Amino acid sequence: MDMDTISAISTPMGEGAIGIVRISGPKAVELADRLYKGAVPLQEVASHTINYGHLINPEDGQIIEEVMVSVLRAPKTYTKEDMIEVNCHGGLTSVNRVLQLILNEGARLAEPGEFTKRAFLNGRIDLSQAEAVMDLIQAKTDRAMNVAMKQVEGKLSNRIQTLRQALLETVASVEVNIDYPEYDAEEVTLDLLREKSTYVKQEIDRLLTTAEQGKILREGLSTVIVGRPNVGKSSLLNSLVHENKAIVTEIPGTTRDVIEEYVNIRGVPLKLLDTAGIRETEDVVERLGVERSRQVMIDAELILFVVNYNEPLTDSDRELFELVKDQDTIVIVNKRDLDGQIDMKEVNQLAGQHPVVTTSLLKDEGVDELEEAIRDLFFEGDLDSGDLSYVSNSRHIALLNQAKRSIDEALMAVETGMPVDMVQIDITKAWELLGEVIGDSVHESLIDQLFSQFCLGK
Amino acid sequence: MDMDTISAISTPMGEGAIGIVRISGPKAVELADRLYKGAVPLQEVASHTINYGHLINPEDGQIIEEVMVSVLRAPKTYTKEDMIEVNCHGGLTSVNRVLQLILNEGARLAEPGEFTKRAFLNGRIDLSQAEAVMDLIQAKTDRAMNVAMKQVEGKLSNRIQTLRQALLETVASVEVNIDYPEYDAEEVTLDLLREKSTYVKQEIDRLLTTAEQGKILREGLSTVIVGRPNVGKSSLLNSLVHENKAIVTEIPGTTRDVIEEYVNIRGVPLKLLDTAGIRETEDVVERLGVERSRQVMIDAELILFVVNYNEPLTDSDRELFELVKDQDTIVIVNKRDLDGQIDMKEVNQLAGQHPVVTTSLLKDEGVDELEEAIRDLFFEGDLDSGDLSYVSNSRHIALLNQAKRSIDEALMAVETGMPVDMVQIDITKAWELLGEVIGDSVHESLIDQLFSQFCLGK
Repeated sequence: MDMDTISAISTPMGEGAIGIVRISGPKAVELADRLYKGAVPLQEVASHTINYGHLINPEDGQIIEEVMVSVLRAPKTYTKEDMIEVNCHGGLTSVNRVLQLILNEGARLAEPGEFTKRAFLNGRIDLSQAEAVMDLIQAKTDRAMNVAMKQVEGKLSNRIQTLRQALLETVASVEVNIDYPEYDAEEVTLDLLREKSTYVKQEIDRLLTTAEQGKILREGLSTVIVGRPNVGKSSLLNSLVHENKAIVTEIPGTTRDVIEEYVNIRGVPLKLLDTAGIRETEDVVERLGVERSRQVMIDAELILFVVNYNEPLTDSDRELFELVKDQDTIVIVNKRDLDGQIDMKEVNQLAGQHPVVTTSLLKDEGVDELEEAIRDLFFEGDLDSGDLSYVSNSRHIALLNQAKRSIDEALMAVETGMPVDMVQIDITKAWELLGEVIGDSVHESLIDQLFSQFCLGK
Repeated sequence: MDMDTISAISTPMGEGAIGIVRISGPKAVELADRLYKGAVPLQEVASHTINYGHLINPEDGQIIEEVMVSVLRAPKTYTKEDMIEVNCHGGLTSVNRVLQLILNEGARLAEPGEFTKRAFLNGRIDLSQAEAVMDLIQAKTDRAMNVAMKQVEGKLSNRIQTLRQALLETVASVEVNIDYPEYDAEEVTLDLLREKSTYVKQEIDRLLTTAEQGKILREGLSTVIVGRPNVGKSSLLNSLVHENKAIVTEIPGTTRDVIEEYVNIRGVPLKLLDTAGIRETEDVVERLGVERSRQVMIDAELILFVVNYNEPLTDSDRELFELVKDQDTIVIVNKRDLDGQIDMKEVNQLAGQHPVVTTSLLKDEGVDELEEAIRDLFFEGDLDSGDLSYVSNSRHIALLNQAKRSIDEALMAVETGMPVDMVQIDITKAWELLGEVIGDSVHESLIDQLFSQFCLGK
């Protein structure tokens, strides 16, 4: 493949001790060498060495930065191409000017994910591994990280390959049957078809059973805190955030509009929605209006519904109970340090299937029970066992579901006595769908779109 | 010196392609090696090499991360100690678990700035150079970066050393005079004293004249936008931000409370205050009340005061003119695309010394003139000339001012015929004060405090 030389900032934007600007492509070393002044020219140093020196603006000879330059020659690199990593002082101005210098010298600004895309296009990793790289970076908990790590190592890819192999053997056998009908092997072929298809279908089912948990681990469980004013929503938020080291992600481009906060509750990453609203007004419903609140609640995967132990239930409370009826909800009866004015019997009755936890957030009581309730609701005890080959990526889940449907159709076709060449179409279809998971036979535009979701410099 | 082995995350916190965890100290390589699994143990590889492998949790043998480990052996390292840089996937979970693994293995979590502090304590750089490292990271513009770079290279240190040398020679000469009064060289000594002290004082003065600009470059010019509702404050903010790539800094610990936005206006970094207020309510005064607004304005170093070309001046406008009277202010007459209802003669009269710029922010007109006015107000044409050895650090400025005062006292003492040994005290004092700039003779607690302002991992 004929690749140009690309460059991007690879460390997160912000003030930090170290910033890295990466270069990849056939001219990476030569290009960096024109900007570098050190003991030995970069083109003459050994691969995989770190070289102290300065970057010089070739126009006026001015020193731009004090740097450590890593020279990594193909093929043992991230992209399988020649790579340079310029290690400079952290800070936005510093990394930006180093990047600018490199771009001026002829490199092209890399698109998001383009380094990983090259690793894929150059055959170092397959598509599901590449996608897992981004999962690794965005992992909100240890467990999510472990799942992504296994996938980067190719564990999912291997499973998919095994299943595709089984389907391929089936198709081959069908081919024989079509090409040499005189052998009259149809019954044998049908048996094989049934057996292999059923096996593949079961394996896909096994993978899909992990999908829900996998998705939660990967993307976080979108969670909203609701309740009447002054029941302790803000305290609950603070308690969850402070005890669990929130990860605050600001969505780029908007300064203050969208802030996602993640907290890690016993391995379950909660993505707290609308926390800004709670912080600012202490009352989502009041601020957003009932209709919009309803929408926020419907979109949430977990609702933390707070009522006040110290007051009788109100009609607003009852209305909220009604609203959360069909969703994963934990009812939190807060302020248990105060007088019990609430009718707990009614609470339990209105809560129905939902777990009820009583807390005193003020006294930091009941928080452990709440955290356990959250964990149990989604991982029922198996969080520390089991293997880690979750399917977590929505694209993979969709493809697995489609593949399963094709196999179902094939099996149905077999049962209803359709000609084997019709069955073959469905099996081939399933084989192709599984191929898309690992990037075999996927369309270029899909690849572009997938990598465009990456962060810059990866 | 007996140092332990320290570790910290050295890349900015956030999602990025690459994260780096640094280790420094006598056990750095050995410690990392216990966690590392690759082709060759780290203890056996050459210095300044990059080694691909995995980090393994020694407790259960599980793979924690895929890493590139840089081995950097003393003394040619940042700290002059053995160093390891673990280059792992970016992302908060990833870097945190790598760090945790290293800490579990016996490293101590580094304090902010501790790597640079070791570079200082181990004699690789002096204190003013160390301080400039942080300036480098925090530089908001190219020019601020250049200034910091020169300082890291030791340009300020060299000047200070020269001045100290001159003072030392004077003191030596005074000593001779005291020890051997029979030489009767007092007149010669006094001449020397006068000459050297005057020279040093002039040099300090020269340094101090750069201080105001240096401080602006380093810290940014705190700027507030004021004006009645609906005159275009929000448009002005957006115009400044969008055309100049704002750098948004969130103050850690507060999620949404304090946000500083920096924009680079022709090399002048503006720190925009209270932009959140403008975004949210379109009206600082209304939101904060007059008293608080007054305070914000007093604290600002630059006021951008917007009035409406399309309306006659109101009493509120006149009141604001009165408020900004004694401060660096640019008057912006906005909406010049509409009918002129304002009395420009009165505007110019009320503006007094302040520059007046007319704009149509809607049509993007007059923004260039505004930016030029900002630049001229603080750098009057010399922004691209002159050398770059600005004094920018408040601590240095304070010390230089004190040293200058001591020299003044010495000169005064000479003139009033005080005995030379009294004069000597002042000169020695000045010599010591200059020494504090570069970290000679500074108290340990000051050193601790200075480095504690650093970012982690540097």
